[in-house]
Amino acid sequence: MITTIGFDADDTLWHNESIFEAAHEKYRALLSRWHDAATVDRRLFATEMRNLELYGYGIKSHALSCIETAIDLTEGDISAAEIREIITRAREMLDHPVELLDSAADVVALLARTHSLCLITKGDLRDQERKLAKSGLAGHFAHLEIVSEKDPGTYARLLSRLQVRPEQFLMVGNSLKSDILPALDLGASAVLIPYHLLWEGEQVATMPPPAAGRFFQLQSLRELPALVTRLDQAG
Amino acid sequence: MITTIGFDADDTLWHNESIFEAAHEKYRALLSRWHDAATVDRRLFATEMRNLELYGYGIKSHALSCIETAIDLTEGDISAAEIREIITRAREMLDHPVELLDSAADVVALLARTHSLCLITKGDLRDQERKLAKSGLAGHFAHLEIVSEKDPGTYARLLSRLQVRPEQFLMVGNSLKSDILPALDLGASAVLIPYHLLWEGEQVATMPPPAAGRFFQLQSLRELPALVTRLDQAG
Repeated sequence: MITTIGFDADDTLWHNESIFEAAHEKYRALLSRWHDAATVDRRLFATEMRNLELYGYGIKSHALSCIETAIDLTEGDISAAEIREIITRAREMLDHPVELLDSAADVVALLARTHSLCLITKGDLRDQERKLAKSGLAGHFAHLEIVSEKDPGTYARLLSRLQVRPEQFLMVGNSLKSDILPALDLGASAVLIPYHLLWEGEQVATMPPPAAGRFFQLQSLRELPALVTRLDQAG
Repeated sequence: MITTIGFDADDTLWHNESIFEAAHEKYRALLSRWHDAATVDRRLFATEMRNLELYGYGIKSHALSCIETAIDLTEGDISAAEIREIITRAREMLDHPVELLDSAADVVALLARTHSLCLITKGDLRDQERKLAKSGLAGHFAHLEIVSEKDPGTYARLLSRLQVRPEQFLMVGNSLKSDILPALDLGASAVLIPYHLLWEGEQVATMPPPAAGRFFQLQSLRELPALVTRLDQAG
């Protein structure tokens, strides 16, 4: 019997990667005097991966990696005014309106009537709090967890704190790596709802493990309430 | 009867502002071709205050504000190599060893035997988690709370979640603004232990309100166990 549903936030409830992708487009344009888009993308991703342990996720980390990569790729030729553009872009991203995914508001409101909902997101503390506040969904969540990494240990600590057993927990998200595999690993259920863009850092080669009756994939959040009802009836 | 003790982290358990101060010294030197130290300090602080709502606290926020201020103060004259120095400095700060304040390890270990300890800190999620891990003190804390702001609402939500009444809670920290006033405001007790440096953003003009028997000031963490014993006997 599922009592608690965990929701990922970025690209599960609201658009995120599309905002990063638009910023990347401008970043490529900024550096196009020096390098082609593929080189820019490859080097930026390498910088971000190298900095991940030190910086963590989020827009400020991304901005610092963009500045570092721009200086490297231009061998110091980039101007201060162009670096300022990168900062301006990061500020715009932080200040971007929250655009909910289709049916997110209805689905969250509906499921909150019957289940305890928990928002579980990586990234920057202030930024994720602000997005939840702007989303209008905050009132439906019993818990907000902003974590620095989503691995099995993170989910185990969270469930222990909430006094929820894995078989009572369903995780919903767009990332196999961060939302689905660690939840299945613990013995919880998980629903993958892919977003049309997935950041390279979230891509995994593995498929979900055999977890009969615990792993599901949906096309849209809209299909989630029916699945939850089905699980409740089976449970 | 005090059951739960909240500890601030930066400049309460380990040195922090001294690391920022050393970085500021290098930042002033970097900009000394253009401006005197007082101007640099004033403008950087103004940038940080303006960015606080958008960026939140922490080293990455600070680095972005340093870059922005450097571009402004030099009217774009600063070189990419000099901007890279600012990033390098931020990385060094993130990677800095955690230096515990005198007697912090003993006091925390001692109080953990008799009270539930909670670490309550602002700042960057990943950075504060890393510092707690490096500090060697993690095992003594029942709860870790990294928050985006320390106001009465933050403490009220935390106490409610921990099911602790304000009169059972004692907050220990170096900032009147963030650690002491909001805790007293709720009806909890609070112990101010000043650090020799206090960031301008934490400075308040007000004195602690009259809170007889609930507000205390100590010279050193070393004096805390005796105070807690005294409060327990009075309670």
